[in-house]
Amino acid sequence: MNTWAAISTWRMSYDGLQAASQQLNDRVSAGDAVEKLINTVEDYPLYKSVGYGGLPNEEGVVQVDAAFMDGDTLAQGAVAALENVKHAVSVARRLSQNKTNSFLVGPGATKFAMQAGFEMTNMLTTAAKASWQDRRKSTPNIDLKPYDGHDTVGAIILDQAGSMAAATSTSGLFMKKSGRTGDSPLSGSGFYVDSEIGGAAATGLGEDIMKGCLSYEIVRQMAEGKSPQAACDATLYHFIAKLKKRSGQTGAISLIALNKQGAWGVATNVEFPFCVATAEGGAQIYFAQPGQAGVTPIKAVSSAWFDEYEKQNGISLD
Amino acid sequence: MNTWAAISTWRMSYDGLQAASQQLNDRVSAGDAVEKLINTVEDYPLYKSVGYGGLPNEEGVVQVDAAFMDGDTLAQGAVAALENVKHAVSVARRLSQNKTNSFLVGPGATKFAMQAGFEMTNMLTTAAKASWQDRRKSTPNIDLKPYDGHDTVGAIILDQAGSMAAATSTSGLFMKKSGRTGDSPLSGSGFYVDSEIGGAAATGLGEDIMKGCLSYEIVRQMAEGKSPQAACDATLYHFIAKLKKRSGQTGAISLIALNKQGAWGVATNVEFPFCVATAEGGAQIYFAQPGQAGVTPIKAVSSAWFDEYEKQNGISLD
Repeated sequence: MNTWAAISTWRMSYDGLQAASQQLNDRVSAGDAVEKLINTVEDYPLYKSVGYGGLPNEEGVVQVDAAFMDGDTLAQGAVAALENVKHAVSVARRLSQNKTNSFLVGPGATKFAMQAGFEMTNMLTTAAKASWQDRRKSTPNIDLKPYDGHDTVGAIILDQAGSMAAATSTSGLFMKKSGRTGDSPLSGSGFYVDSEIGGAAATGLGEDIMKGCLSYEIVRQMAEGKSPQAACDATLYHFIAKLKKRSGQTGAISLIALNKQGAWGVATNVEFPFCVATAEGGAQIYFAQPGQAGVTPIKAVSSAWFDEYEKQNGISLD
Repeated sequence: MNTWAAISTWRMSYDGLQAASQQLNDRVSAGDAVEKLINTVEDYPLYKSVGYGGLPNEEGVVQVDAAFMDGDTLAQGAVAALENVKHAVSVARRLSQNKTNSFLVGPGATKFAMQAGFEMTNMLTTAAKASWQDRRKSTPNIDLKPYDGHDTVGAIILDQAGSMAAATSTSGLFMKKSGRTGDSPLSGSGFYVDSEIGGAAATGLGEDIMKGCLSYEIVRQMAEGKSPQAACDATLYHFIAKLKKRSGQTGAISLIALNKQGAWGVATNVEFPFCVATAEGGAQIYFAQPGQAGVTPIKAVSSAWFDEYEKQNGISLD
C-alpha cells in the first residue's frame, strides 16, 4: 500500500478521522476523504462549534463558515454566514468547481445550497438554544462578548495517489454579530494546500489569524524545505510576538500542517488536542501545549487520558 | 516636508488620489487619506465597478465588498455583500477598531452600517439598471457569465509620520451570483500592509487572486529586501505560470505595491492604468502592460493620452 496521511484539529475530529482513514485505505481521494471527515463532525449534535448543534450568533441564528481546497488544481470554494444547511463543507466543495462565484456569503450562499439540492435543516438544537438563552439572561445584552471560540474543525489529507486537500467548517464565535466571519473560509488564513508541497489549517481567534495569513505562510516555509513542525513553530511564535508588539495582544491560535511526504506538525499558544492518522500507524489523539523557546511540546494520549484531563481541569477541549 | 507616497489602481482613482495628496501634504494620517481616496471613487456615479453606480449582481442588486488595514497595528476590517451603503470602505475602517466581529458579510454587515449611522442610499443608478436590463435581454438568463470584472479600487498610502494603510472597494463582477465575494475584502489576497515593510493590493479575477494570497506574498518578498517592482514581478509571473500549469488557465490579475521608503511597483497580465503620487512629484497616471520575461513595461502618460488610447482601441479601462 502507498502511504497516506491525515491531520485534523481538536479531539472532536477523531471519529471523522477514523471514517476518513478507512476511505484512504480503500484509495478514496483526498477530496472525498476530507469531506467525509468534516461531514462527520458537522453531523454530531454535541459539538458546539461546528455544524448541527453549533452555538448561534447573538440573534439566536446558527450561521456557519466553511471552505474546501483542492491541492492539485488550487481550486477553492467557500461559504460564510450560511444558514440552515447541514453540511457546509459540501457546499464549499461544490463551489470549488466554479471558475467564478466560488465564494458565496449570506442569503446568496443559502439560496445556492437550496437550489443545488443540499440538505436543509434547522441547525439550532435544543441544547444550543438553551445555551443562547442562558447567555442572554446572564449578561446584559449590551455587554455580550464573544468567547474565544477556538473550535473550527480543519483537516489536511494526503491520499495514496499523492493528491492533497484541505477543508474547514465552523459555526464561529458564540454570540458573534450576525454576518461575522472569521479566518475559516479565507484562503491562506484558515487553510491552504498545494499537493506539490503540503497544506495547513488554523483554528482560534479568526480576527487575529487573518492578520498573518498563517496557513499560507506555513505552506510557503515548507516549500523552502522546512519540516511541517519547523514551519508551524517558526510561523506561530514569530507572528504572536509581532502581533503582541504591534497591537498589544493576541488571541488563541493553533496551527496544523501536513506535507506531501505525510510528515506533520503543530504549533499553538493554548492547550490544543488534535488527531493524526497514517497508513502505518492508524488514528491517534495528540495533545499540544504552548511552546517555550519556539518549540511546541506534543505528546500522544489515549482517549481515556484526554477525558480524564478534561474532567480534572474542569474544562472541555473537544 | 517629510516624504509621503500613494499608489492606487486604475485611472478612476486619479481624482481620489489628488484629494488624498492634498491631505498627505497637510500631514493627515495614511488611514484618513486612504479612506478619502476610496470614498472619492465610491461617490462617482460613472465608475461601474465601485460604490455608487457600480453594476449589480444577477438579481439587479448592488452588493459591494471593501476592506481597510492599518499597517501600524495590523488591524483589519472588511465587509462583503454589503447593500445600500454609500461608503463601504468607511464601514470596513470602523470595523477595524473591533477585536472581534471585524469582518461582517451580508445583511449583518448592512445592519451594522445602518445602526452605526452610515449614509444609506439606493446604490443602483439609472445607468447601472439599464446595463443590467440590457444584459438580461441580450443573453438567455441561464447562460449569463460574469465578465472579467477587473476594477477594484485599491490603494496603499505612506504618510509623513511613516505610517501606512491599505484599502479596497468594489461592486465585484457584473452579474455575479448573489453573495459572491472576490479577493478585495480578503486579507493577504486583495490587500496587505505592514508599516515596517510596505503594502500591496490586487485587482482582477478575485477567484484566482485568492488562490495565491498575492498581496501577502508581495509584502513578504519586500520584507526579504526586494524592491516593490521586483516583488510584484516575481510574485505575479511565477503565480500565473503555476496556476496555468495546475488548472489550465488564469484570469486577469494586476498588482500594486508601495514600500515604507515610498518606492512603488506594479505587475499585470492585462493592460492596466494606475496612479501614483509622491511628496516630490505630485500625482501621475501610469500605464502598465503584461510583462515579457518577467518584467512589466510601465510608462507615465497624460490624462489626454489615456483618453485617446481608450478611444482608439474602443475600450474603457477606467
